[in-house]
Amino acid sequence: MTEQITRQWADAVNSERLMASLQQLARFGDTGDGGVNRQALTEEDFAARRWLIDYAQQLGCSVFCDDSANLFFRRPGRSDLPPIVTGSHADTQPTGGNYDGCYGVMAGLECLAALNDANITTLRPIEVVIWMNEEGCRFAPGAMGSSAFVDPSRLPHYLTSTDPQGVTLAAALEAHHRTFPKLPRRATCPFSAFIELHIEQGPVLEETGKTVGVVSGIQGVRWYHIHCQGQAAHAGTTPMTMRHDAMSLAMATTQKMTALAERLAGDGLRLTFGHWQIAPNAINTIPSQVTFSVDFRHADSAVLEAFDQQLSECLSEQCQAERKFAHSPILFDPQIVAAIDTACDALQISAQTIRSGAFHDAMYLAGHCPTGMIFVPSHQGISHNPAEFTEPADLIAGTRVLAWTLAELANQSHDME
Amino acid sequence: MTEQITRQWADAVNSERLMASLQQLARFGDTGDGGVNRQALTEEDFAARRWLIDYAQQLGCSVFCDDSANLFFRRPGRSDLPPIVTGSHADTQPTGGNYDGCYGVMAGLECLAALNDANITTLRPIEVVIWMNEEGCRFAPGAMGSSAFVDPSRLPHYLTSTDPQGVTLAAALEAHHRTFPKLPRRATCPFSAFIELHIEQGPVLEETGKTVGVVSGIQGVRWYHIHCQGQAAHAGTTPMTMRHDAMSLAMATTQKMTALAERLAGDGLRLTFGHWQIAPNAINTIPSQVTFSVDFRHADSAVLEAFDQQLSECLSEQCQAERKFAHSPILFDPQIVAAIDTACDALQISAQTIRSGAFHDAMYLAGHCPTGMIFVPSHQGISHNPAEFTEPADLIAGTRVLAWTLAELANQSHDME
Repeated sequence: MTEQITRQWADAVNSERLMASLQQLARFGDTGDGGVNRQALTEEDFAARRWLIDYAQQLGCSVFCDDSANLFFRRPGRSDLPPIVTGSHADTQPTGGNYDGCYGVMAGLECLAALNDANITTLRPIEVVIWMNEEGCRFAPGAMGSSAFVDPSRLPHYLTSTDPQGVTLAAALEAHHRTFPKLPRRATCPFSAFIELHIEQGPVLEETGKTVGVVSGIQGVRWYHIHCQGQAAHAGTTPMTMRHDAMSLAMATTQKMTALAERLAGDGLRLTFGHWQIAPNAINTIPSQVTFSVDFRHADSAVLEAFDQQLSECLSEQCQAERKFAHSPILFDPQIVAAIDTACDALQISAQTIRSGAFHDAMYLAGHCPTGMIFVPSHQGISHNPAEFTEPADLIAGTRVLAWTLAELANQSHDME
Repeated sequence: MTEQITRQWADAVNSERLMASLQQLARFGDTGDGGVNRQALTEEDFAARRWLIDYAQQLGCSVFCDDSANLFFRRPGRSDLPPIVTGSHADTQPTGGNYDGCYGVMAGLECLAALNDANITTLRPIEVVIWMNEEGCRFAPGAMGSSAFVDPSRLPHYLTSTDPQGVTLAAALEAHHRTFPKLPRRATCPFSAFIELHIEQGPVLEETGKTVGVVSGIQGVRWYHIHCQGQAAHAGTTPMTMRHDAMSLAMATTQKMTALAERLAGDGLRLTFGHWQIAPNAINTIPSQVTFSVDFRHADSAVLEAFDQQLSECLSEQCQAERKFAHSPILFDPQIVAAIDTACDALQISAQTIRSGAFHDAMYLAGHCPTGMIFVPSHQGISHNPAEFTEPADLIAGTRVLAWTLAELANQSHDME
């Protein structure tokens, strides 16, 4: 494809159509305060999927699903080479906004609509994917659909996950397949590349004033629960020297862990103590048990591993660390990163390299095919919130960068290494 | 009364009868793990009251109640002078033990039984009182019955207090009066003195090896809620320098408050951060709002007032202090304290002066009549717990000190100043 045709495609991206389609998707699970509650495989999610399937079929796509209820919208190419795939997820947090996940899905479909308008057929098929349960708030863990796609042996372990009402994932998937009985099911197949367009969910691009973030990779993470044991006693009768206060112990432990993490991570520190359970949690009783969570992220595996090894030095005998989750840092494919860079240059859209602090489905896809991500700014970094907002101009700029990158990749006849 | 008769009374205190009666009271609301759940004005409490009324009537007492469902068991004296009153409460925490409150009630009744055995009639009537809802766990606040007794204008404010099932105190009191329709109701009347015998609920007597604590007074208290405001943001995407972490702010604030309280209170420090609410309380979200409680106690009003005045110096602009409760320190009546001291000496029971860190009904009675308290040791200071335990020898020693003190006071013809 000549640069002229690529530019023709990018120019065919239609701002009004993109904004209207985002608004239409936001109707499903509308919470009335500007936000959305559309958790995975709920009736709201099914209604959204029905609308999305209709829309994709109107664009000429064939539609598939798989055992994990991932949805694939395929626009044929001139060949049957492995497709270039874009997309994200359409489920939300209980207090979600209109952009997290949804933007990547609707921007992908907008790229297909623009291809139609420009009357272009690519060499490779292009697919838009909707990954099931990225958020992980109805069924844990998150990114279920993408992780089960790249490694189907994970799905059986997920099936017994239950939502707060006691519904298993197995039952929710059955409900999905009953609701959409005619969708052909497809097994995991090779992708030529996966590009995920997403809001940043952080404040960096807004701070630096750049329109696009070219994502170099995803930080690795460690999640721990730290259990601190004390002894409940009366706040009025127990001298300070005779106390075993689990909350005082927990607070002292966070200080030691902060010092350790600062020493290891330096400026790249991301350390959060976000979840706390205090017992008996009464105003006049000394806390007997405190459990708090540790979320530590870094781009360097060695830093994460050093944290694992040295963590015990922060813990007294009354504290125990329980590892809840670990993921190594991801480096995205240099050819994809370069293609996104080229697209920004060609379109004269200001860009910077950025690392993702949040998890995304692309984290798992990176193990399946050459993968990359494109970020656009999030106002004040706010996400998982009805106030989540990105300027329409930035949304359209990101979609044009996506279109250019897809054009570049969808016309390469050789598979990337 | 001669010292010989007083000693006769104290010697008539019957260990086996006292222990048996404590065991019988513990049947009502027995939780099967050595503990009791007998919250105020529940069916369990009514059943216990029915048994207590029978027992008191068998001892020859007349029985009264009042509008607040306080129960009074009166043993007549040779005169109608204002009575000497002892007693405590029979309600428990949901995970209560067998001694908190119950010991003071059953020891009071044991003193009346011992009077019968010794065939003694005192100059003044002696009453054993059971104060309604001392614990404050079904209906807030605690010490409802005693505080409404000394100031009946409080009762109308308490009537709308609701339990977790939505039952109002008004409805619970009606149920009580329906259950015991024949009990004559009495208005608040003068007491000559009030003596409350209680387990220490702290570790001090066990540490010092003394059998009895002669309580000099009750610490004053301040309860605050400190509200800390931050901003929720993604734990992975938000650089440390751009965070507004409400939990970090709360932890730093506890350090400043601890430094202030240490400076003001010195060795007498009692400072507890027992209750915490963290939002959104998610492992991967920076806390946006934290509220924590402050329980600060001291024997000196000036220290408490200085804490009130200087608290704002510990608070940043993102913190707000809300005062939830305040009570001034109580100094018990020197004549009562001296009478208890004398009793310990006469009975050769080892004793020390002690200050109560916990609230008791005696806190309110001190505003009504000369008041004092007697403590016995609590094993490991454990209370509000099925493991609450006091050695039978200590229970009987405390009861003998109570009997001696009641004898002393019940035969004074002059009212104390």
